[in-house]
Amino acid sequence: MTESFDIWMRSVQSCVEKKLSELLPSENRTPQRLHEAMRYAVLDGGKRIRPLLVFATGTLFGAKTSVMAQVASAVEMIHAYSLIHDDMPCMDNDVLRRGKPTVHVQFGEAMALLAGDALQAQAFVVLSNVNDDAVLAVKRYQILSGAAGSLGMCGGQAIDLDSIGKQLTIGQLEQMHRLKTGALLKASVMLGALSAKIPSPEENRALEEYAKAAGLAFQVVDDILDVTADPEMLGKTPGKDLMNHKPTYVSLLGIENSKKLAEQLRRQAHDVLEPFGKKADYLRELADLVVYRKK
Amino acid sequence: MTESFDIWMRSVQSCVEKKLSELLPSENRTPQRLHEAMRYAVLDGGKRIRPLLVFATGTLFGAKTSVMAQVASAVEMIHAYSLIHDDMPCMDNDVLRRGKPTVHVQFGEAMALLAGDALQAQAFVVLSNVNDDAVLAVKRYQILSGAAGSLGMCGGQAIDLDSIGKQLTIGQLEQMHRLKTGALLKASVMLGALSAKIPSPEENRALEEYAKAAGLAFQVVDDILDVTADPEMLGKTPGKDLMNHKPTYVSLLGIENSKKLAEQLRRQAHDVLEPFGKKADYLRELADLVVYRKK
Repeated sequence: MTESFDIWMRSVQSCVEKKLSELLPSENRTPQRLHEAMRYAVLDGGKRIRPLLVFATGTLFGAKTSVMAQVASAVEMIHAYSLIHDDMPCMDNDVLRRGKPTVHVQFGEAMALLAGDALQAQAFVVLSNVNDDAVLAVKRYQILSGAAGSLGMCGGQAIDLDSIGKQLTIGQLEQMHRLKTGALLKASVMLGALSAKIPSPEENRALEEYAKAAGLAFQVVDDILDVTADPEMLGKTPGKDLMNHKPTYVSLLGIENSKKLAEQLRRQAHDVLEPFGKKADYLRELADLVVYRKK
Repeated sequence: MTESFDIWMRSVQSCVEKKLSELLPSENRTPQRLHEAMRYAVLDGGKRIRPLLVFATGTLFGAKTSVMAQVASAVEMIHAYSLIHDDMPCMDNDVLRRGKPTVHVQFGEAMALLAGDALQAQAFVVLSNVNDDAVLAVKRYQILSGAAGSLGMCGGQAIDLDSIGKQLTIGQLEQMHRLKTGALLKASVMLGALSAKIPSPEENRALEEYAKAAGLAFQVVDDILDVTADPEMLGKTPGKDLMNHKPTYVSLLGIENSKKLAEQLRRQAHDVLEPFGKKADYLRELADLVVYRKK
């Protein structure tokens, strides 16, 4: 990681943290416990990969910081809501997330359900309050809502749910992840561009290919970390996929081949950015970060 | 109910049913079971009060049927998702809805959770695909997301959750319902207008007052029906509020005074529509429907 990337990353993370705190209703506002749960789930945690993707692409296209911060916050709220619901007893039944008790452990199941629901709505509130161009705004709604729904993230989770205990092919596993995590990562890249303008068909294609490679790399590395990472470092319960008999890249390809695949996807992500030149370096370094991260 | 209103109501219900079926992904599309659950929750059921409000206000303002149908479908999807989650074991733990087993009984809890999540997203997909004016589209997005979130419907549910077993004042009960059901009913009225144009401040005020009175009347009558209605007629488990020690209008005011309040609100809803003249008759008859319904 270059020093300038590291500085940029920290500045984006701190900008997004501040914006998220502003855009989430205060804990003093009724209903207090709901707002407390929403803030607990979102603030002070996570790598903020999706906001970083929004900012990296947004910067490449010349977007305003204020627009990127708001759009990035909306994406992060969708991500945070999905984690709350994913951790619930009827789903993964996980008790630890980002090193803290999960939302249903801390606030009870009913409040966790509502906090997730309200966060999804809040993401669209935030997106609808970006005060720039109405035509761009409509495009952004289309991208984020589509990525969140049954043909995106929720659809991936449904496939995941149906796959427990089943033997999937690599193709099926890839399709599941393309929806489950890939859709929102791709949306982040696209929303970054749409924070500035509607990209040309060529730009669009390059960004989509980048997002596809980086998104898949993200999942492959997640599967590797699930079996190799230090639990304290990871901030969530490792080994869960294995325990739940969920198919993973590691269970299908083994660790070494999974690592090779991640490296190959990282290079692919670099290659498709060629036409953008040096200006796409943040996106390149983000692909590196995704693959070389330790948690 | 006049004959012409009855004909209009049935035509709206059938138009919305058709549109909802079109706008929900097919059961043949992957992930099939998720799409099956979403369609099960939305189609072939319910009074469609919210779509009727969209059409009544939309017609008053001269909106196109195609726009109203899409906007009304979005609102109904938000309503349907809230029912799925509300019925889950960690919330009301209800097994019967619209005369059918609830979604989690039919599809399991995890799939019910996802179906609700995906329906919320789908509502925003549908709203973002209305192809008219981008400035109106942004306004509609603000209204629907705001009504769905923590300062609207989800917020009302959180207050409801915290009120179980507590003695509320009439004021607190009203605030809870203003959010829990009132916010989405009000949004339906506003979205009807915004299917045509941005209403003037005077029009806006009159619509808000109508929605407030009709929304509250709806809840008062719900509470009355919860203790008086025939279970088979109601299509859901009656007496639940009492059993759950939830405060209701009936428990606070008694049945007779609740009925008087509903009638008073119905008249109020009529009165505020005065400036619109005869053209607002559908809205007037909807207020009557809300109060005089038997389920």
